[in-house]
Amino acid sequence: MDNGNVTPCDLLIVRGEVLTLDADDRRIRDGAVAVSDGLVLDVGPARELSARYRPERVLDAGGSVVLPGLVNAHTHAAMTLFRGLADDLPLMDWLHNHIFPAEEKLTEDWVYWGTLLACAEMILSGTTCFCDMYLFEHKVAQAADEAGMRALVGEVLYDFPSPHYGPLENGLRFTEDLIAEWKDNPLVRIAVEPHAPYTCSPELIRTCFEIAQRHDVPMVIHLSENEAEVAEVVRRYGKRPVAHLADLGVLNDRVIADHCVALDENDMDLLARHGVHVVHNPESNLKLTSGIAPVPALLERGVNVALGTDGCASNNNLDLFAEMDVCAKIHKAAASDPTVLDARTVLSMATVRGARALGFGDVLGRIEKGAAADLIVVDFRKPHLTPAYDPVSHLVYAAKGSDVRHSVIAGRVVMEDRELLTLDVEKICAEVRAIARKVR
Amino acid sequence: MDNGNVTPCDLLIVRGEVLTLDADDRRIRDGAVAVSDGLVLDVGPARELSARYRPERVLDAGGSVVLPGLVNAHTHAAMTLFRGLADDLPLMDWLHNHIFPAEEKLTEDWVYWGTLLACAEMILSGTTCFCDMYLFEHKVAQAADEAGMRALVGEVLYDFPSPHYGPLENGLRFTEDLIAEWKDNPLVRIAVEPHAPYTCSPELIRTCFEIAQRHDVPMVIHLSENEAEVAEVVRRYGKRPVAHLADLGVLNDRVIADHCVALDENDMDLLARHGVHVVHNPESNLKLTSGIAPVPALLERGVNVALGTDGCASNNNLDLFAEMDVCAKIHKAAASDPTVLDARTVLSMATVRGARALGFGDVLGRIEKGAAADLIVVDFRKPHLTPAYDPVSHLVYAAKGSDVRHSVIAGRVVMEDRELLTLDVEKICAEVRAIARKVR
Ligand SMILES: [Zn+2]
Ligand SMILES: [Zn+2]
Repeated sequence: MDNGNVTPCDLLIVRGEVLTLDADDRRIRDGAVAVSDGLVLDVGPARELSARYRPERVLDAGGSVVLPGLVNAHTHAAMTLFRGLADDLPLMDWLHNHIFPAEEKLTEDWVYWGTLLACAEMILSGTTCFCDMYLFEHKVAQAADEAGMRALVGEVLYDFPSPHYGPLENGLRFTEDLIAEWKDNPLVRIAVEPHAPYTCSPELIRTCFEIAQRHDVPMVIHLSENEAEVAEVVRRYGKRPVAHLADLGVLNDRVIADHCVALDENDMDLLARHGVHVVHNPESNLKLTSGIAPVPALLERGVNVALGTDGCASNNNLDLFAEMDVCAKIHKAAASDPTVLDARTVLSMATVRGARALGFGDVLGRIEKGAAADLIVVDFRKPHLTPAYDPVSHLVYAAKGSDVRHSVIAGRVVMEDRELLTLDVEKICAEVRAIARKVR
Repeated sequence: MDNGNVTPCDLLIVRGEVLTLDADDRRIRDGAVAVSDGLVLDVGPARELSARYRPERVLDAGGSVVLPGLVNAHTHAAMTLFRGLADDLPLMDWLHNHIFPAEEKLTEDWVYWGTLLACAEMILSGTTCFCDMYLFEHKVAQAADEAGMRALVGEVLYDFPSPHYGPLENGLRFTEDLIAEWKDNPLVRIAVEPHAPYTCSPELIRTCFEIAQRHDVPMVIHLSENEAEVAEVVRRYGKRPVAHLADLGVLNDRVIADHCVALDENDMDLLARHGVHVVHNPESNLKLTSGIAPVPALLERGVNVALGTDGCASNNNLDLFAEMDVCAKIHKAAASDPTVLDARTVLSMATVRGARALGFGDVLGRIEKGAAADLIVVDFRKPHLTPAYDPVSHLVYAAKGSDVRHSVIAGRVVMEDRELLTLDVEKICAEVRAIARKVR
């Protein structure tokens, strides 16, 4: 063999059908992806790439589909600790008698283990990047970093004292410290995260926005999750939540608005005009009876809509495959139109649109030269994925998180043949079970 | 050890948490189930049963939950062949340009392989019993029998000639022949299956009902799936579909009505009064934009509502775990009430209510002495099932079909540690892939 023209690379993924999700939506049967220094070096037919590169490591993708890793654009990762603690209850009973009392016991240790568990679950179900809002977020950042996951995290801020940082001014300082601390981390970025318009004063929201602008980081906020929130904000400020934020001058394309279920036409126009990114969480919205967000109308206006699972207390899983399936189906019923939110659109919400929302859009969400090597390999050699007329249809309507075989984040193999390489699952589960005994 | 008081048994399932789903909803931590001659011989604490029985075979259920096998009360199993062939299209385009042309090519061989594939998928995702409506149902019966699955199957009947049996009178004769042929089979039973009120004349439906009564078998029919069907039946007969069937005198407690989405109060009263069993197929109803069936209102009237996936062309999977999750969530949103269809109710729809609907209610759907030994073992040692405060919540809101570890049907182990023991998956998938090339 003549090695004269052969380039060394870190990793070569071979023999899969590559869904690049690039601008041309290129699909390569029996394709390969070459990876070096955390980036995609090349993508093309397996035969060509096998001849062109000498990889240090090879991942087999035979019978499988290779695609960009999924982006969970809204969750509260550590709430895995409360998964199934209480369900099927009236909202206020659930919150005040179950979730809040459990959260009062939170420690940074609990958040650390709960987030590691979430990272395990997310990697095992194809997610490579997530956006988090919770307490003790320095431990979320640490856990994501240890798991090798890409993440945008931020401490939740509101008018009342926090079980973590105490008075609000500490929270603002803590957020700026986090931004400084994680500034150069290749995986983890920090956002400024006021909880919601009904828990944060106009001053707090304006301060958050100012901090986000100053540091050039995203601002994440729950927005218009349900009609009760809209009514409360109208009562206090005489305007609906979106208009309230617009008038505060805190809406732009670095703002990530979670939920956006209860919107009127003017709200949607405002979100579109200001380039706000919306994160849709259909399963949580159904379970908590928030309703069905007007996603088709938002997309029609050009709003970037991403997909999230929300926390495990209201879902109760972090599986974006299940979320994609539900998303594609409920909007058809809501619109009485089976062509609404087709599989390709929903897949883009869970990949490139999520990446764009979180500010990773320049490098994530597609497989092409120079993009970040964040990708997953989904095993199609299963009865429930046979036959395979259209891989995109299967990814949305038939695949499960458990079909994900390998996962690569920033060029690092974090899961191979469903074995997690960055996390000690046994230990994490044992720690969380011990915490759960105290929760109960 | 004193063997004097030790009883031999075929199978002992040990170390699991047993959810009996019996009248007292008994749950046994570190429990065991003893099985002999296809029936549950005993259920109780593992320590007691291990001392009491000498099993020929032991299945370990450590870290797992043992529960009755799931019942898929409505599907068209062989439509696995068309999974993902066409999605996101207007209903008539989808049916007339994609599904019907594909079905015109159907052969008994195709139905056989498609059904075997469905059986593989169903066993792998926890289903032990299903109700089928399609063409060439003798091959469905054969496939179910070979797979070792419990099934209620019947040839679809309608006014026009069938690609299988030709003119209708052949179909009626074929159905009666099937009933005779499978009369003594321990697993497979036959139903009479007129397709729907808009495809079957009143005479045909009456004839079907008469055959079902004469042979004491169920009658299965699609009923009030959407508003278009209601409008068509009203146009033809001056009555809504349910009232139409009631006036024909063909509604009783041996009738299984699939879908029942478009119902008014009077329809629901009629279904309740006649003891009709309803099968709810939420994912298919969403994807085909049929709507959301009024399940809480039906349950309130005492109607027995079971759960089904419908066929793979409109779902696109046969996973009852996904179906339970969607079912529990969409009705909360539809009713704006998070207490609607709690996890325990939804689990009963997928087990004992399904068994009752299909006429297996005397032996299936609970784990107790004398019941059929149809049960599954779900592995909870997974990040997404950790921690476990409430196994029923997890089964509905967090578990996936792929968490099912063992499956036992009529005392026979059909899956052990996710290996299918009755089916050659490689061969089935290869055959179906070959068929798919002809479909396309
Ligand atoms: Zn949230
Ligand atoms: Zn059907």
